[in-house]
Amino acid sequence: MSIFTKIINGEIPSYKVAENDQFYAFLDINPNAKGHTLVVPKKEVNKLFDLDEETYNELMSFSRRIAIAIEKVIPCERIGMSVIGLEVPHVHVHLIPLQKMEDIQFIKKVTLHPSEFEALAKAISEKL
Amino acid sequence: MSIFTKIINGEIPSYKVAENDQFYAFLDINPNAKGHTLVVPKKEVNKLFDLDEETYNELMSFSRRIAIAIEKVIPCERIGMSVIGLEVPHVHVHLIPLQKMEDIQFIKKVTLHPSEFEALAKAISEKL
Repeated sequence: MSIFTKIINGEIPSYKVAENDQFYAFLDINPNAKGHTLVVPKKEVNKLFDLDEETYNELMSFSRRIAIAIEKVIPCERIGMSVIGLEVPHVHVHLIPLQKMEDIQFIKKVTLHPSEFEALAKAISEKL
Repeated sequence: MSIFTKIINGEIPSYKVAENDQFYAFLDINPNAKGHTLVVPKKEVNKLFDLDEETYNELMSFSRRIAIAIEKVIPCERIGMSVIGLEVPHVHVHLIPLQKMEDIQFIKKVTLHPSEFEALAKAISEKL
């Protein structure tokens, strides 16, 4: 069982942004930038392009709605999207508020207090 | 007019992988890895999440088909997807064959001969 499945199941706590029957969105606990959010299909599939076409399309559509909500909360140049997956074998879409290139290079992290994570998750979910 | 519109119009040459009425896919001339492909909507919009919902969904669906074709040609761990856009203000989806994290960090480039680009574009398009 992947760490993301444990988060979806509530075995590991998370700062939830949104959830429906297929997908779960929550704040990355080790964010590249404030507002960095992960969108995960509940179905535990390793690779993005191994998802069936319908699930893939719905994941992208769901991620778009989350990105637009993040953009309303976090001042940024734009929201970047990245799907890599070399570390956790469970599809996850990174949505990252960008100011500069390094915000999407996973080379620099920001630290937030739990109360900041909570307020952020709430603010984004209210914009959905 | 963006550099990508010039490529789509044929004013700047490119190694074309696929094209339909809405999208144009071609090899990145300064690739992170062999097979690095860009997918661009012909409509010149700056930011991914400013695309109308239908165009966004179709872009993602088109990109999926290209990614699956790239994966058949290039041995790799998986195909990564990234949309950043801080440099060229015209939406472009990066599809990048990944072996390791740095392949999607835009910190390392590979050099290919024109004949390699041509063969690659042909091989990927034949898998569509």
